[in-house]
Amino acid sequence: MATLVAPNETSPVEEAETLHKAFKGWGTDEKTVIAILGHRNVHQRQSIRKAYEELYQEDLIKRLESELSGDFERALYRWMLEPVDRDAVMANVAIKNGSKSYHVIVEIACVLSPEELLAVRRAYHNRNKRSLEEDIATNTNSGDIRQLLVGLVSSFRYGGDEINARLAKTEADILHESIKEKKGNHEEAIRILTTRSKTQLLATFNRYRDDHGTSITKKLLDHASDDFEKALHTAIRCINDHKKYYEKVLRNAMKRVGTDEDAITRAVVSRAEKDMKDIKELYYKRNSVHLEDAVAKEISGDYKKLILTLLGKHH
Amino acid sequence: MATLVAPNETSPVEEAETLHKAFKGWGTDEKTVIAILGHRNVHQRQSIRKAYEELYQEDLIKRLESELSGDFERALYRWMLEPVDRDAVMANVAIKNGSKSYHVIVEIACVLSPEELLAVRRAYHNRNKRSLEEDIATNTNSGDIRQLLVGLVSSFRYGGDEINARLAKTEADILHESIKEKKGNHEEAIRILTTRSKTQLLATFNRYRDDHGTSITKKLLDHASDDFEKALHTAIRCINDHKKYYEKVLRNAMKRVGTDEDAITRAVVSRAEKDMKDIKELYYKRNSVHLEDAVAKEISGDYKKLILTLLGKHH
Repeated sequence: MATLVAPNETSPVEEAETLHKAFKGWGTDEKTVIAILGHRNVHQRQSIRKAYEELYQEDLIKRLESELSGDFERALYRWMLEPVDRDAVMANVAIKNGSKSYHVIVEIACVLSPEELLAVRRAYHNRNKRSLEEDIATNTNSGDIRQLLVGLVSSFRYGGDEINARLAKTEADILHESIKEKKGNHEEAIRILTTRSKTQLLATFNRYRDDHGTSITKKLLDHASDDFEKALHTAIRCINDHKKYYEKVLRNAMKRVGTDEDAITRAVVSRAEKDMKDIKELYYKRNSVHLEDAVAKEISGDYKKLILTLLGKHH
Repeated sequence: MATLVAPNETSPVEEAETLHKAFKGWGTDEKTVIAILGHRNVHQRQSIRKAYEELYQEDLIKRLESELSGDFERALYRWMLEPVDRDAVMANVAIKNGSKSYHVIVEIACVLSPEELLAVRRAYHNRNKRSLEEDIATNTNSGDIRQLLVGLVSSFRYGGDEINARLAKTEADILHESIKEKKGNHEEAIRILTTRSKTQLLATFNRYRDDHGTSITKKLLDHASDDFEKALHTAIRCINDHKKYYEKVLRNAMKRVGTDEDAITRAVVSRAEKDMKDIKELYYKRNSVHLEDAVAKEISGDYKKLILTLLGKHH
């Protein structure tokens, strides 16, 4: 379930006019901006953007970028983009960031449905005049990490629910062997994780736990040291249970000295319209504190207001 | 230009009825089958199939399979499928065939447009309940050949016309180095061929010829010995000029003792509605004999009648 609170009936033209007024004069009326855009679903936001363009011959997103700044601007910019476009932007930023952002690429490749991932690849073409896999391949060193990342984003997994139990056993063993040997050959592990359907992979992960007495993610966590093993760990977690994964993204973002605002933005903006309510519940169960309260302590200003709005907090 | 000759106005229901009569009694009236189906474009064939299903609660393609046999049946079966379905079938047969049919997989991956290839991958899901890349990865040995084939079918290349001339030079050199060393590292060559846009690759191949005094396909042909090098050669030829490629497929199919009917069927059925006229012209230029005349000498019976019909020969 989503946390976004949006009314059923809205008036895009009036809202575009209200936003235009909010930009007028010295400073911007951020409260109004949040009150409107923080409470509109993806279709409503696109309608407002379209109405704004028609009324003022100006792209609302560009205007927001010039009016706002910092974490608030970055969050609102991502929020205003259509999801496939947003993921294309986040993937592109992650590629430029290098190995410290590989997890963002893995997230997009493994959390989205096969058809959604294709749509992101199409959006990436339109924005960058290159393919997503092309940019990843050019910007990674050859070897396992490139093969894994390119394989994950290029995959078009079968989406059906069929399970081959015998295969799950064989491939759980292959994954076990591949993880055990630190300098082993990872080609087969990459093949399995980049080509099998998600349902089949879940069966394989379950079989791994049954046969080897520990979950594959725990086993990998004990091991994960290089970029490849970390990316493998992220891929398995995103495929296995992306809500638990995002709970931990948020937890880690606030655990460190120096909050990781980008991670908070990414998780909240990506999931507010999808399943943030479930992620919030997981967060509360795990931490005995409400996500909104934890976030409220870590961030501030208009950025805080926007994030809490997207998290469904009543003001 | 196509060689298929199809009338503008047709009557799917009447034609379904005529076909049904042609199947009645002892033996099939193959002449009527060819006269109708050999002269209908993809939409008309689908309309006849639909009309037949509605009239007789039977799939026309299944009926054709049970009525006919041998090369004629195989050719008509492929002809009757929608192109994306046909390619999904041909890819699946090729995967089962192993290394001697890798060129069929490469053809599909490299001749089709990026969007067409996606449609074939979707059709492959529907028919096989697995992904195309999954079946290829499982049925190839690890190493370069798997990486190349999986990379080619998984690619979603950028479709624009932009060329980066500096990149073309760098990557022509990388390809040159990769081909020169027989046991070299092919990862970079695979990266280039599986991710760059076709327009960019053409620029790279042209640069190769300018800088190294010979075309990359000639250079590769001198070398190609193992499955990987052969597949690389096919990929480059399909990207470079697929019409010239198909001209040679047809030439080779008839050069050997024992005609390669499958290759003739594949080339004719795949291209009759697209650019077979151009391929015929290339064939005549190269061999000083008309493709229809050459084919007519090699094959016989109803199969010959169908193939010549698709090649646009007047009876």
